Amino acid sequence: MVKEHMEQISKGLEDINLKWTKLTSIDGEKGILKYGGYKIEDIIKGKALVEEVQYLFLHGELPNKRQLADFQGKIHDGYSVPKYVIDAITNLPYESDAVALQMNAFAALAATEKFKWDKQADRDVAAKVIGNMATITAAAYRHISGMKPLEPEPSSSYAESFLKAAFGKKPSQQEIDAINTALILYMDHEVPASTTAGLVVVSTLADMYSGIVGALAALKGPLHGGAAEAAISQFAQIGDPAKAEEWFNQNIVTGKSRLMGFGHRVYKTYDPRAKIFKSMAVDLIKNNREAEKMYKIALKVEELGIKNMASKGIYPNTDFFSGITYMSLGFPLKNNIYTAIFALSRVTGWMGHFIEYVEEQHRLIRPRAVYTGPEDRSFIPISRR
Amino acid sequence: MVKEHMEQISKGLEDINLKWTKLTSIDGEKGILKYGGYKIEDIIKGKALVEEVQYLFLHGELPNKRQLADFQGKIHDGYSVPKYVIDAITNLPYESDAVALQMNAFAALAATEKFKWDKQADRDVAAKVIGNMATITAAAYRHISGMKPLEPEPSSSYAESFLKAAFGKKPSQQEIDAINTALILYMDHEVPASTTAGLVVVSTLADMYSGIVGALAALKGPLHGGAAEAAISQFAQIGDPAKAEEWFNQNIVTGKSRLMGFGHRVYKTYDPRAKIFKSMAVDLIKNNREAEKMYKIALKVEELGIKNMASKGIYPNTDFFSGITYMSLGFPLKNNIYTAIFALSRVTGWMGHFIEYVEEQHRLIRPRAVYTGPEDRSFIPISRR
Repeated sequence: MVKEHMEQISKGLEDINLKWTKLTSIDGEKGILKYGGYKIEDIIKGKALVEEVQYLFLHGELPNKRQLADFQGKIHDGYSVPKYVIDAITNLPYESDAVALQMNAFAALAATEKFKWDKQADRDVAAKVIGNMATITAAAYRHISGMKPLEPEPSSSYAESFLKAAFGKKPSQQEIDAINTALILYMDHEVPASTTAGLVVVSTLADMYSGIVGALAALKGPLHGGAAEAAISQFAQIGDPAKAEEWFNQNIVTGKSRLMGFGHRVYKTYDPRAKIFKSMAVDLIKNNREAEKMYKIALKVEELGIKNMASKGIYPNTDFFSGITYMSLGFPLKNNIYTAIFALSRVTGWMGHFIEYVEEQHRLIRPRAVYTGPEDRSFIPISRR
Repeated sequence: MVKEHMEQISKGLEDINLKWTKLTSIDGEKGILKYGGYKIEDIIKGKALVEEVQYLFLHGELPNKRQLADFQGKIHDGYSVPKYVIDAITNLPYESDAVALQMNAFAALAATEKFKWDKQADRDVAAKVIGNMATITAAAYRHISGMKPLEPEPSSSYAESFLKAAFGKKPSQQEIDAINTALILYMDHEVPASTTAGLVVVSTLADMYSGIVGALAALKGPLHGGAAEAAISQFAQIGDPAKAEEWFNQNIVTGKSRLMGFGHRVYKTYDPRAKIFKSMAVDLIKNNREAEKMYKIALKVEELGIKNMASKGIYPNTDFFSGITYMSLGFPLKNNIYTAIFALSRVTGWMGHFIEYVEEQHRLIRPRAVYTGPEDRSFIPISRR
C-alpha cells in the first residue's frame, strides 16, 4: 500500500519548479554557474566587490560607482543593531552552535522590527540586513571564542569590515580578497533547502527577518550548510595525507561513510565554485600550517574520490575546499562557524528570492500529504482503554 | 516569456504531495477532519485530554492509563528549561511579537541541545518539547504583559498547568476544558506552510528545535497563524453588531478588504473545527463582556459572509471563532499571542510530521527554479561602469 502511495509523492520536491528567478542559473551538466547572466569566473576575475554582487541580486544590474557608494551607505546603517540583538547572542553558552546564534539574533529582530512587504522599501531593508548580518556573524564568532563582540566599522569593503570586527585587527589584502571571493561564491544557488524554507515562511507574508530565521534553521543541517565543516572534519579525522588512501578504502569504498563535499543534486560534473576555492587555497594556506595539512589531505582525497566516483557524476562541490579557506583566515573548526560564514554570504541570495517571490509571484505555499493511516476508528474513552 | 515559464511552475505547491502521513486526513468537500482515523468531533465528545491526542500523534495509538501517566511524566520533565531559554524571551522588549519570542526560546534550545535523529529517542524528545512549549508560551504571554514568567507545575492536565502558569491562578474547569479543546482542534492540519517550512528544515537533518523554529517563522505570517488574530481584529474594528452590515458592504462586497477567518485552501464547506469553537463560545463568552460583543459581531459577519460567499465554497474556518475563545479566557488581543497559543497546540503536529518524514521517508527537500533572467552578459569592471 505504501509503495502505491509513494508514486503520488514528489519526494524531496525533486524536479518541481517552485518559482522563476532572474538571480542564478546553473548548468549542472557543464558545470556553469551564472549570477544574472554573469559567469561566476568572470565576476571573480573582474575583481568585483561582494557589495557589487549583492547589488546585482537586489537590483538586477551591476551598480555604477555612485550607486555602489549609496548601497554601501545603506549597508553601513545596518552595522548598528539594538543592544538586545547582541544580548540574544551573548546570553547563550559559549558552546552554542554559531548558526543558532544567528537564528537568535534574527529572531530578536523579527520580534521587534516593524516590517511590511513593500516594493519601495524591501531593497533598503535588505541592504540594512546585509549590514546587520556582518555584525551578527562577527559577534557569533567572537562569542563562541569567548571574546566580547565588536561592531563593524564602515569602510570601502564589506569583507574588510567583517574580518576586522571578527578578529579585532586590520586584515591583509590577501585575507580581504579571500573572504570577498568566498562571500561571492556562496551568495546564491537557486532554491536549495535553506532558500526553500525561507520562501515557505515569507509566502505567509511573514516578515523578512522571520524568512531569514527559517532559512538559517535549514542551513544548520548537516546535509546542507554543514557540509563545508563536515568535509574539513573528515580531513582532520584522516590527519595525514599518507593515511588518506587507507581511510578512503576503509570508509568510502566500503560504503561505511559518505564522502563529504562530494556530489550534488544539481551538478553532475566539477562544481565551478570548488575550482575557484581550490586555486585560491594554494597561496592562502601558506599562512596557516593546519590549513596547509588539510589542503594536502584534501588533494589526496579528491584524487581518490574522482577516480572512484566521477563516472557516476560525483565530483567535488563548493564545500570541499571552502573550509580550508576559512581555516587559513584564522577561523577555528568549531561550533559550526563555517556554516555561519556561509550564511553571511547566502543571506543576500535568500532575500533576493524572497523579494522576487513576494513582489511578483506570490502564492501561499501549501502542498498536500497522502493519508496512509487507518480509515475509520471509533473513539473509546480512556476509562475503557 | 514569463507566461510560458509560469506553466512550468508549481505555484504554491498546490496539489503537490510532499509526503505521506498517518496523522491527519481532511475531506475538504464534506468538512471532515480526522486524527489517525478518529473524527475530531468524537475526540472532543469523548472528553479526551490533549495529552491523549498528543500521544496519538507520536505513537499512532491512543494511550491506556499507564501509557498516559508515563507520557505526562515525560512532558512534566520539559516544564523546566535552562535559564538562558527564559532569558532569550525576557531579554526582548515588552512590545515583542509573541511568536517571535517562542522562536527565540527554541533557537536558544537549538543552540545548545545535543540532538540527533534517532528512532529510540525522538518521541521522548518530542514529549519533553511539549513540556518546554507550555513553559515558553506562558513565559511569552507573561513577558508581553509585563509579568515575570512562572514555571508550569505538573498536574493531571496539561491545559490546567499551562493556564495556571500563564495567569498565576487556578483556572476553572470550564476554562481548562476550553483550552484543552482548543489545543486539540489546532494540533494538526496535514501540511500547511508552517509544517512544510519545518519539514524543509529537518530534511537537512537539522535538529528538532530548528525544525520548530522554521515552523514558527511561517506560522507568524498573517496568511497562516495570524488569521485568528486578524479575524477578531476585524470584529473589533467593526465595534458593534449593528454596524456589521454596513462594514461588510463597504469593505468585503467592494473587495477592498478580505474577510479574515473565511475560506480555506482545502475546505470548500464549513470547517468542522469552526463549528466546535462556535458552540463552545456560547457559554464561554459569559465570562467576558468584550468577548461577548465580539461573538455577537462574529455571528452577524458570519451570516453575511455565508450569504455572499458560500456559493463559491467560502465558509468560516477554524480561525473565525477561536480568537473569541482566547479572549474569553482572558488573553488580550495583542502582540500576536493568539498565534502563539496556536503554536502551543501545533508543535505536536509539527513534530509528528518531522518524525514520520525523517524516520521513514527522508529525502533532502531541494526543488528547482526556472531561470528567466538575461542569458549571457559580459562582466565589465566597476572602473568602466
